[in-house]
Amino acid sequence: MELPSKYLDALIGELARLPGIGHKSASRIAFHVLKMGDDETARLLSAIRDLKKNIATCTECGGISDGDICAICASPSRDRSVICAVEEQKDVLTIEKTGGYRGLYHVLGGVLSPLDGIGPDELSIDRLMERCRNENVREVIIATNPTIEGDATALYLSRLLKDIGVDAMRIAHGVPVGSDLDFTDSATLIRSIQSRTKM
Amino acid sequence: MELPSKYLDALIGELARLPGIGHKSASRIAFHVLKMGDDETARLLSAIRDLKKNIATCTECGGISDGDICAICASPSRDRSVICAVEEQKDVLTIEKTGGYRGLYHVLGGVLSPLDGIGPDELSIDRLMERCRNENVREVIIATNPTIEGDATALYLSRLLKDIGVDAMRIAHGVPVGSDLDFTDSATLIRSIQSRTKM
Repeated sequence: MELPSKYLDALIGELARLPGIGHKSASRIAFHVLKMGDDETARLLSAIRDLKKNIATCTECGGISDGDICAICASPSRDRSVICAVEEQKDVLTIEKTGGYRGLYHVLGGVLSPLDGIGPDELSIDRLMERCRNENVREVIIATNPTIEGDATALYLSRLLKDIGVDAMRIAHGVPVGSDLDFTDSATLIRSIQSRTKM
Repeated sequence: MELPSKYLDALIGELARLPGIGHKSASRIAFHVLKMGDDETARLLSAIRDLKKNIATCTECGGISDGDICAICASPSRDRSVICAVEEQKDVLTIEKTGGYRGLYHVLGGVLSPLDGIGPDELSIDRLMERCRNENVREVIIATNPTIEGDATALYLSRLLKDIGVDAMRIAHGVPVGSDLDFTDSATLIRSIQSRTKM
């Protein structure tokens, strides 16, 4: 097989390294880039450059931010008595997109995982406790993933929070809305029964 | 919903314009870009820039090329008596990837479509005939898509080729290898019966 263009091949190679993009999608995107106008190309290039250059970590919550304090922590319309603790920065966006949560966030930066050498000191737990103590926080909603490590981290946090008199809440796990009992795995189903709520 | 970063949002917006990338994939890729090292970011940026700056159209076949003549047309090991006519530049890559074709290519630049105002003059048909006459071409394999326009274009080309004594061949259409008769649509199935070959 002859390669008609080493430049095309180079771009396909770089695109195929991105998550969720295989060789076929990369090839399709590269041909799209070929046809893109100069305007659109410049916009894509500067969007990548600007993001890498300007993005910072919010000194309050640890989420992504354009400045010292992110738009969520700076907003006067958020409920400052509730903090939702998440594993990663992207989880903030995922919850924010639902449009149904009006409190603040705290990014832990991972979950406790002794086998990987990740203990409480590797996560942003001290900072969370500091915020809870100093800022009249009433409730922390722990939204780590429902994995063994996520659940263990939630349990660990809940004990620390109880000690300082803050309500530790866990997001509910159960049958997804719009799903079918048939398609729900047993672990989820039994949890949805254990966590049943009164109608 | 508060946007924690307008830069992140800008990149997600640009990525979501690429083919096959929805808002969710765009968001995933943007977070990956955030975590990418400076090396990898530079490689991605320059791959896009280099492609847009250096890519040319081969003056022989009309395919993509890094110079005046593409690597396929310039290769001494290709069979120069066979030309495969395709609709788009990307079709060259698709066929080339099979590794089973050793002839040359010709990119038509589309298909005849009178309703869209695309007649023979809008396509690279004169150039194909010129190549056939001047370069001892024995056979043209017409690999336009099996659509109404693709088939009509193939028929039109086959008449022109017959006039100058060149064999006009059409790629076979039938049941895909590894597929099942059950999953094959009727149009394909009847075509596979009409085009049956002797065992």
